[in-house]
Amino acid sequence: MGSSEKPFRIGVVAPGGVLTDHGLLERISAFVAGAYEGRVELLIHPQCRLADGHFAGSDTQRLSALVEYGNREDIDAIWFLRGGYGSNRIASDAVPQLGAPARRKKWLGYSDVGFLLAALHRAGIGTVAHGPMPVDFDRPVRGREAIGRALAWLVDGHPASLETSERAETPKLALNLTVLSQLLGTPLEPDFSGRVLMIEDVGDYLYRYDRFLFHVTSNANVRRCAGIREGRLIADENPTAVFSTPEGGVVADWCRRSGIPYLGAADIGHDSDNKVVPFR
Amino acid sequence: MGSSEKPFRIGVVAPGGVLTDHGLLERISAFVAGAYEGRVELLIHPQCRLADGHFAGSDTQRLSALVEYGNREDIDAIWFLRGGYGSNRIASDAVPQLGAPARRKKWLGYSDVGFLLAALHRAGIGTVAHGPMPVDFDRPVRGREAIGRALAWLVDGHPASLETSERAETPKLALNLTVLSQLLGTPLEPDFSGRVLMIEDVGDYLYRYDRFLFHVTSNANVRRCAGIREGRLIADENPTAVFSTPEGGVVADWCRRSGIPYLGAADIGHDSDNKVVPFR
Repeated sequence: MGSSEKPFRIGVVAPGGVLTDHGLLERISAFVAGAYEGRVELLIHPQCRLADGHFAGSDTQRLSALVEYGNREDIDAIWFLRGGYGSNRIASDAVPQLGAPARRKKWLGYSDVGFLLAALHRAGIGTVAHGPMPVDFDRPVRGREAIGRALAWLVDGHPASLETSERAETPKLALNLTVLSQLLGTPLEPDFSGRVLMIEDVGDYLYRYDRFLFHVTSNANVRRCAGIREGRLIADENPTAVFSTPEGGVVADWCRRSGIPYLGAADIGHDSDNKVVPFR
Repeated sequence: MGSSEKPFRIGVVAPGGVLTDHGLLERISAFVAGAYEGRVELLIHPQCRLADGHFAGSDTQRLSALVEYGNREDIDAIWFLRGGYGSNRIASDAVPQLGAPARRKKWLGYSDVGFLLAALHRAGIGTVAHGPMPVDFDRPVRGREAIGRALAWLVDGHPASLETSERAETPKLALNLTVLSQLLGTPLEPDFSGRVLMIEDVGDYLYRYDRFLFHVTSNANVRRCAGIREGRLIADENPTAVFSTPEGGVVADWCRRSGIPYLGAADIGHDSDNKVVPFR
C-alpha cells in the first residue's frame, strides 16, 4: 500500500472473556505501529477494558461493541482480542444485526471465539478465519511471530500465514474441540458437508477430549465432513486417573470408530505456531 | 418376601471408570447380606475388578460383562458400580445385544452411566432409574443411607426412595448435565418431548456448566421437554476467573433465555441425598 492510501483499519473487540492485563492493549498497539509504520491502524474498542466477572463486560456490552465495529464502514477487519468464555452468549443475537459492511470484513480469532466464527460462516458474513489473536502477543515464546502472522493475513492475505496441510481452495473449517461440541444442535452450527474439519484444544483432561470426540464424531452433520485433521490437543494432567491413549491417539481412534477419514495433523493450537485457517 | 422364595438377584457391572479400592466390593456385599438376611444377593461381575487405565477393563470387556449380566434370566436388576467415564463407548453396541431378560430388569445408576440409562430408555429396555450406586457406600457421610435407598427401590420399588418434586406418574428423565450435553445428536439421545428433565453435575467450573446449559437448552429436542428441574450443580473453584452468577442461577437463566419452563429444585446430585428418579 502506498503512503497516500488510507490506513488499513482493524477493529478489536472482546466477545468473551475479560482481559486482566490492560497493558497488552498498549503493547500490541505499539507493535502494530512499529511494524506497519502507519499503514495499519488498530482501533481498540473501549469494551475491551470492561469486566463483568468472567466476561469482558455484560452480554449487552459485548454484543453492542461487536455489532458497532462490525457495521462500521471505515473498519476493514475485526480481530477478536481473546477467547476465554462467552461469545456463545451473544453470537445468535449478533448475526441478524450485522449488515453490508460486516460482509466485506475479515474476521479473525480462535478458541471460544469459534462460536462466532461458526455463526458468521454459517450466515455467509465476511471472510472468517481461525488464527492468532492479540492476546497471543504475551505468550512466553514467539508471541510476536504469532501476531505478525495474524496481521499479515488480515492486512495482506499473506500466504505465509496459512496452515498448509490442505490446499488453499479446499473447503475447510477449524474449531476448538470443546466449542465444536457445544455448538452442535444450536443455531450456530455450520454445515460440515464436504469440508475438512480441523480441531484443537487446551486446558482439559484427555478423557474429556475423548468424550467430546465421541459427541462430535457421532453427529450426522460432522460425519458428512471430508475428514478431520488433528491440531494440538494439549491435555491437563489428571490427578485421579491416567487415560489409556489408544494407538494413534484419541482423534484417529474416534475417526476409525465413526468412519470419518483421519487426515493427519493440522498446524493449529493454543500456541505461537498456530497458523491461519480461512474458512471456505 | 418369604424365606422360601429365591433371593432377589442384583448384578453389578462397571461400564465406565475403574474401581481403585476393591475393598468396596466386600463392604457392599457384607452390607447387603446384613441388611437383607439372604433375601437379596449381590452378583458382582469379575469385570468390576479389571483396570485398563481410566476404564474398568477394555471396551470389549466392559461391553461383554454388561451384555452377559443384562441377558441372564436369573438376575433381576443391574446396579451399575460407579460412573467415571466410558459407558458412552459401549452403549450403542450394548443395546442391540440385550434380549428379553434385559427388558424385565431394573437398571440403576447415575453420572457417566447416564449414557446407558438414556440408551436403554430410548430403546424401551427395562425400568431405568437415576440413583445411587454401590460406590456411594464410601461417601464420608450417610453413604449407607444412599445405598439403602437404592436397594429399597431395586428390591421393593419402595416409594420412600423416590425423588418427590414431581408426581410418580409424571414423565421424567434425570441426567448428569455433561452427559446430557454429550449424548445430544448421538444414537443415545432419548426423546425429551413432554418430559420433565432433571439435571445435576459435579467436578467442573461454573462457566463450563453455563456452556453446557447453552448447548443443552439450544437443542430442539430438549426444548420440547416439559421443563427443567435443577439438581445439585457442584462447581470447582476456578483459579483464573470468577463467573458472575446471574440472578437465580445459571439453570434458571438458560431456561429463561430458551423459553424452557424452570421448575425449581430436584433432589438429585453427587451426594448421599441423591434420590431415585425412575425414567418414564
